[in-house]
Formats: sequence, structure tokens, C-alpha cells
Amino acid sequence: MSREKVTVLGLGQMGSALAEAFLAAGHPTTVWNRTPAKAEAAAARGARRAGTVAEAVEASGLVVVCVLDYAAVRELLDPVAGLLAGRTLVNVTSGSPEQARETAAWAAGPGARYLDGGIMTTPPGVGSPASMFLYSGTPEAFAAHRDTLAVLGDPIDLGEDAGLASLYDTGLLGLMWSVFGGWLHATALAGADGVAARAFTPVAVRWLSTVGLFMERYAGQIDEGRYPGDDATIDVQLAAVEHLLHAGRARGVDGRLPELHRELMAKAVADGHGGDSYGRLIEAFRPAD
Amino acid sequence: MSREKVTVLGLGQMGSALAEAFLAAGHPTTVWNRTPAKAEAAAARGARRAGTVAEAVEASGLVVVCVLDYAAVRELLDPVAGLLAGRTLVNVTSGSPEQARETAAWAAGPGARYLDGGIMTTPPGVGSPASMFLYSGTPEAFAAHRDTLAVLGDPIDLGEDAGLASLYDTGLLGLMWSVFGGWLHATALAGADGVAARAFTPVAVRWLSTVGLFMERYAGQIDEGRYPGDDATIDVQLAAVEHLLHAGRARGVDGRLPELHRELMAKAVADGHGGDSYGRLIEAFRPAD
Ligand SMILES: NC(=O)c1ccc[n+]([C@@H]2O[C@H](COP(=O)([O-])OP(=O)(O)OC[C@H]3O[C@@H](n4cnc5c(N)ncnc54)[C@H](OP(=O)(O)O)[C@@H]3O)[C@@H](O)[C@H]2O)c1
Ligand SMILES: NC(=O)c1ccc[n+]([C@@H]2O[C@H](COP(=O)([O-])OP(=O)(O)OC[C@H]3O[C@@H](n4cnc5c(N)ncnc54)[C@H](OP(=O)(O)O)[C@@H]3O)[C@@H](O)[C@H]2O)c1
Repeated sequence: MSREKVTVLGLGQMGSALAEAFLAAGHPTTVWNRTPAKAEAAAARGARRAGTVAEAVEASGLVVVCVLDYAAVRELLDPVAGLLAGRTLVNVTSGSPEQARETAAWAAGPGARYLDGGIMTTPPGVGSPASMFLYSGTPEAFAAHRDTLAVLGDPIDLGEDAGLASLYDTGLLGLMWSVFGGWLHATALAGADGVAARAFTPVAVRWLSTVGLFMERYAGQIDEGRYPGDDATIDVQLAAVEHLLHAGRARGVDGRLPELHRELMAKAVADGHGGDSYGRLIEAFRPAD
Repeated sequence: MSREKVTVLGLGQMGSALAEAFLAAGHPTTVWNRTPAKAEAAAARGARRAGTVAEAVEASGLVVVCVLDYAAVRELLDPVAGLLAGRTLVNVTSGSPEQARETAAWAAGPGARYLDGGIMTTPPGVGSPASMFLYSGTPEAFAAHRDTLAVLGDPIDLGEDAGLASLYDTGLLGLMWSVFGGWLHATALAGADGVAARAFTPVAVRWLSTVGLFMERYAGQIDEGRYPGDDATIDVQLAAVEHLLHAGRARGVDGRLPELHRELMAKAVADGHGGDSYGRLIEAFRPAD
């Protein structure tokens, strides 16, 4: 079985992990990095080192670029844009949705197919099917290279709008910081009564699956614009958040995060939505129209 | 096989679900509710209706109480305290850790075994092994009734300090509101670019498992007081949160939640911890000593 040829441009921490995963899966892999010494490890694992960006691009139909930012992407690729014709460029460099859309339009010029990517893991998670790799852009590109991209992690197709991979990526990081904040607050609370973080955390991690079920239920409500509070109302949650604030104060734990949640709930109750589900709070975040 | 006799005091939404789960598993179940009409459904399913609290307590070695609050628990049980001698009282009414500890001491007086419980689901989740039921209190009580309690959901033993079930419960609700907040923010962000909540949410739910792996790693760091930033540093996250704030501003999404995360990260960086992992932020929540 012959594996598709791939090129990896950029061999920082993440690019190196990508090249390594392609090599481990048996893909003929060409690599290039601005600082050539960083290509040595990949070469030792069987990668072909290209002397120039042009040579690297010409080596494969699938070109993955993973550098610091979009400015670096364009600095690298502007001079060789013509060579991208007929190839697929997969850009997993982090940036904004606007930059991704701009780069998609730029790549279309010479006739390249373009996928923007969001890598939802750190380098040690590359190669695991549990890791999500988000892609958006030219639909045929995703279909054509899905199996090759699956070597890096589970490839998730977000459709044609090239900006979406990066929009999801940013939103998911925000979700991560919120989870961390809620968990750290609770860990500090439990810690004040002598509970180790290692004891509390497995219960917290398991609780996330239950919370995920609530999110799925409320997602449907948000799309429909109806928020029946038949499982748990904002009124009930507002009463419960007072217990959390009280327990935190009694233990000297910082209360800014639960204060904010209380503020959002209290506003919804004041607006007459106390009998609704928590999904109603989407209105606290949405742009005012 | 003969199942243990159980009594359920309080047949509100939750108490009714508990009684129903015991009945479904074949436990001879005695029920009592202040407003007698609410006992009809359980009786129709085979429950024995007690005419008084005393009669209900005397019917079983295991007595589960699920009423509005701890004041109601004591109002109910103070007059029949002597009857609790040699029985196990499982109190799954919500309250503070302090109230739980007080009630444990009160129950020890007449010689009852006491477990305080935290129900980490809504009534429809009762009976599913995926639902966590947290217990703390008399260790022998947990061991003796574990199998019966498993009928309600997965029983988790938090040890001898009766206050811990309620402390975990409160902390986990705080975690839930934080998850909801981060998810609603991200959903509003994606929604501004035309993405349905139903499209974004499955990706967000899956991402929670990855975040759970980070939490487990940082939990060990917190207990050891060392925060190596070898996977992702606070410096890198602080740079990334700016992208989130920028994307939110560009779309008119409310930024209070990510602003708070930024504030916590910026403080850690200012304190010289930018090279550490996010676990270091436990210090932002912990009581100052
Ligand atoms: N590390 C992660 O956990 C992670 C996770 C998700 C996404 N990402 C994203 O992946 C991308 C790379 O991250 P990384 O962790 O690999 O960073 P890194 O280790 O700092 O590597 C940066 C790479 O960019 C190259 N570079 C920078 N400026 C350049 C320019 N003007 N022209 C050509 N090459 C240039 C560097 O080349 P030199 O070697 O010559 O300096 C190096 O190969 C970033 O956008 C990052 O946000 C990383
Ligand atoms: N529902 C949930 O999703 C959920 C989840 C976790 C924990 N919980 C906790 O479970 C407990 C019960 O909740 P619920 O949802 O079942 O509430 P509910 O439907 O409002 O029922 C309240 C129950 O408490 C009884 N009660 C109130 N004051 C009383 C008093 N002074 N003496 C005797 N009985 C009294 C009520 O009796 P009457 O019928 O006579 O009014 C009723 O049986 C609460 O502590 C709640 O926080 C609920």
C-alpha cells in the first residue's frame, strides 16, 4: 500500500510532532525549517530534507504549514505561490478567523486547495485518535486527504468557511479556561477542608460528562429559542450559587468567578426568566441587536 | 434474593424519583410525605404508605430523607430521634458542609449511623449508574448499604467527614456554572458567524475530555506545589486569550468571563510565573495565608 507524499513546513515543537506522526505512519515526508538544524531529528527518522521552500512544496501534493503566525506563513509562501497550483495547502498555524479567510482567498489565486486547521492538543497528543484536529475550507481537499490527516489525530470537518476552524479553536480555549477556573475554585474550596487536588479531581472530571449532557440538551433549546426549565430552573441555581459563595467566603476562597455567574443568573431572573433553564443565559453573551 | 427494606421521607420531585428507583429494584419501600397526596404515585407502584414519620422510620433499617432543607430535616426528625437508634439515616437534602457536620453529630446522639449525600443529577438521572451520588459520614454505614444505594446511581464514598459530600456538591455546581459560562460564550462567538449551537456543542463536549486530562495532570502539580510548564505555559495562554477577547469584541460578544481569565493569568505572569503551567493559578483562588 503506497502512502501519500506529504511536506511539513516549520519544525518547531508542533511541526516536529506532525512530521514524526506522518513518518511513523509510513508517509514519504519532506521537511523544511527556517533554522535547518531543527530538521535533523526528522531526517534521522527518515524524512527528506528540502534545501528550499520551493523544493519542499514541489515534493508533495499535500503541504502542511505550522509556523509561529500568519505573517510567517505569508512570508514563507508568497514567493512560491505559483507552485501551490493543484496542491492542497493545510495551514495549522494559529490565528484569527479573519486571517484564515484571507489566506484561503490568497491560496485560491494560484489555484491551490486550502484547509485551515486548529490543533486541539499539545505535541505529545499528536498521533492519538483521541485528539481533535479541526479543519475548514475547500470541501474536496478534506475528502481527498482525510485518511492522511487522520494520522495526526481525529480530523473534524467544519465545512467550507475557512474561518471556522480558528473560531472553534478560540472558543474552545475559552471554554478550557472557564473549566480550569471553576475547577481551581472548587479545588481551593475542597483544599481548605483538607481534600487533596488528586482526590477531588477525578470526581470533577467525571462530573464533566454529566455537564456535557446538560449542554447537549440546552444546545437544542438555544437553536429553538425556547428554554423550558423542566429539569432545573435559573431560580433554583441562583439559590444554590449563594451556598457556593457562602462556602467560599467562610474559607477565604476568591469569589470573583462565582460572583460573575451569580450576576448573570440574577440578571436573567430580574428579566423575568427565573423559571427557564440555564440555556437562556446565552442572551447574556450574545451581541445586543 | 431478599432486598433490604428502605424508607423514603419526602416525596418531592427528587424523593419521588428515589422511591421509584428503590421500588424498581425490588426493595420493600415505605414512604411518607408531609402532603400525603404526593405518596399516591409511589403507592401505586407498590410502596407502603406510612401514616406518621415514626411509623416510617420504624419500618426500615435504612432511612433516606430528601426534603427542602436541613431545617425541614430537623423539624421532621427531632421528635422521633430516639427511634433512629441502630438505624442508618441517609440525608440527601442539599445544604452546607457545616449543616451536614452538625446533623451528623445530632444523629450520633441517639446512636444512629449517618451518611450525608450529594445527588449529582436531576430526577430523570436517578437510577442510572452514570449518575454520581456522593456520600460521607459513618464508614460502616457506607459499607453496609453500598449495594442498596447503588440502586440510585453510582455511590461514591468520600470518607468520614460528613461535610465533604456537600462541599464537593457545592464545588461541582460551581464547576458546572463555569463550564456553562465558557460554553455559552463560545457558542455566542460561533453563533455570530452562523454556527448553530447544535453544531458547535458536540465538539465542545468532546473537548471537555481533553481538558479533563489536563486537570488530572495539574492536580498532581497542585498537591506537589510544583508547576512545570512543559506542555503549555501561562505566557502562551495569555497570548491566546487576547485572540479570544479580540474575536469576541469583533462580534459584540460579552467579554466579562474571558476578561476575568485574562486578569488571573496576567497576575501570575506579573508575579513571575509566566513559565509555569495553568495549575499555578490555584494560588489566585486559595485563601491568602
Ligand atoms: N505547541 C502547541 O501545543 C500548539 C498547539 C496548538 C497549536 N499550536 C500552533 O502551532 C504553531 C507552531 O507552534 P510551535 O509550538 O511549534 O511553536 P515553536 O516551537 O515556537 O515553533 C515556531 C516555528 O515557526 C517558525 N517560524 C517563526 N517565524 C518564522 C518565519 N518568519 N519564517 C519561517 N518560519 C518561522 C520557527 O522557525 P525557526 O525554528 O527557524 O525559529 C519554528 O519552526 C503556532 O501557531 C501555535 O500556536 C501549537
Ligand atoms: N430536583 C433536583 O434536581 C435535585 C438535585 C439534587 C439535589 N436536590 C435536593 O433534593 C431536595 C429535595 O428537592 P426536590 O427537587 O425534591 O424539591 P421539591 O420537589 O420542592 O420537594 C420538596 C420536598 O420537601 C418537603 N418539605 C419541605 N418542607 C418541609 C417540612 N418543613 N417538613 C416536611 N417536609 C417538607 C416537601 O413536602 P410537601 O410535598 O409537603 O411540600 C417535598 O416533599 C432539596 O434539598 C434539593 O436541593 C434536588
